[in-house]
Amino acid sequence: MRQRHKPWADDFIKENSHIVIPNADENKGKWQTLFQNDQPIHLEIGTGKGQFIAGMAKQHPEINFIGIEVVKSVIVSAVQKVLDEELKNVFLLNINAKDVRDIFAENEITTIYLNFSDPWPKNRHEKRRLTYHTFLEQYKHILHPDGEIILKTDNQGFFEYSLVSFSQFGMKLEEVSLDLHALNDPLNVMTEYEEKFSKKGQRIYRCKARF
Amino acid sequence: MRQRHKPWADDFIKENSHIVIPNADENKGKWQTLFQNDQPIHLEIGTGKGQFIAGMAKQHPEINFIGIEVVKSVIVSAVQKVLDEELKNVFLLNINAKDVRDIFAENEITTIYLNFSDPWPKNRHEKRRLTYHTFLEQYKHILHPDGEIILKTDNQGFFEYSLVSFSQFGMKLEEVSLDLHALNDPLNVMTEYEEKFSKKGQRIYRCKARF
Ligand SMILES: C[S@@+](CC[C@H](N)C(=O)[O-])C[C@H]1O[C@@H](n2cnc3c(N)ncnc32)[C@H](O)[C@@H]1O
Ligand SMILES: C[S@@+](CC[C@H](N)C(=O)[O-])C[C@H]1O[C@@H](n2cnc3c(N)ncnc32)[C@H](O)[C@@H]1O
Repeated sequence: MRQRHKPWADDFIKENSHIVIPNADENKGKWQTLFQNDQPIHLEIGTGKGQFIAGMAKQHPEINFIGIEVVKSVIVSAVQKVLDEELKNVFLLNINAKDVRDIFAENEITTIYLNFSDPWPKNRHEKRRLTYHTFLEQYKHILHPDGEIILKTDNQGFFEYSLVSFSQFGMKLEEVSLDLHALNDPLNVMTEYEEKFSKKGQRIYRCKARF
Repeated sequence: MRQRHKPWADDFIKENSHIVIPNADENKGKWQTLFQNDQPIHLEIGTGKGQFIAGMAKQHPEINFIGIEVVKSVIVSAVQKVLDEELKNVFLLNINAKDVRDIFAENEITTIYLNFSDPWPKNRHEKRRLTYHTFLEQYKHILHPDGEIILKTDNQGFFEYSLVSFSQFGMKLEEVSLDLHALNDPLNVMTEYEEKFSKKGQRIYRCKARF
């Protein structure tokens, strides 16, 4: 997704600073205080237009959700969904995921979702993949030892890579599904990409892994 | 594969005791002596009719191969291939894989192949799957620490199960391929099942894992 010039996006994000939290690092270790409850916090990285996080937050009022999305013109759609649904258990952060350790304290997060992350298929771009070991180090720091990473993708190469990367990092696979939609799980909340690719008949892969 | 009554199979196996080694446990720790060389030993479990082991042995004269197959009426076809190709680097064992620790010494094996193992899809048959943890314990004992298990299957459920089982056992995944034949590896030697299922257009899965 290319960042398009949308000056109104800046304004819209500023107007909704109760949803898109500025200076996120100031809340490090205090996110539950900001949510005004002691519910577990689930983090989605690369939230896109927010269909997943909005759907999950509606389905799970007993959980707090934080979505990270680096592209302004994309995150605004997620903000709009949070407004439309009047969701009180969602914050969004307009930052780059490589800095999550500055934003969250040790063990502050219970679950991390990686949904249809950019696959970066070229070998020389391996470092950009959100399952590259430098990212896993960050996730390990902020994720509770009992917590898990849940990854969904349509991209075969990225899925193969991520399974090996998790494993090589010493993580344990809890679940692998090579055709998620065949399970017909009524609780599965689809992302925008998931809807698009599954309509085209592509398989959706999912795995769950623990440190 | 149901065992059919083939009395000639017994005779044929006995006649070829230089290939189908009887009293295999007597060679524990001494397999290289029997091969009369110091080449690494690769073990295939569930050899079936022997297309893979015969093909591999031809392609790799620098490796010794041992194939385990419990069904007599099936192993005879493997024996025939070894005879036809005049292979000197293959032994076959007409035993059950659950006893491999009695047959091989610690670290005696360099690579274990699990090719299209019976998937035993019902939960109550989990213990029979060749990647159930009791089997992994046996494999760990006989496999050299640098060695690996290479698994191929067309069965999605068995593949998902095996990835998780390896991982939960503390093994590390070295490679995962969710569509082996798309790689067009000219060195890939197909098994009977692989040929059959890939002709039907089914995907072939492969993974490599280390203890
Ligand atoms: C392919 S889209 C998928 C969007 C959404 N998760 C879905 O499944 O429909 C990937 C999203 O991740 C975002 N993204 C990629 N790398 C990121 C990073 N390092 N930090 C934050 N967001 C990132 C991109 O801007 C993009 O919106
Ligand atoms: C589905 S067939 C696959 C045969 C061959 N590997 C192929 O890919 O064409 C599985 C084979 O494993 C053998 N087998 C299953 N369990 C076994 C065990 N515990 N010990 C030895 N052989 C076994 C079966 O008898 C059968 O021949």
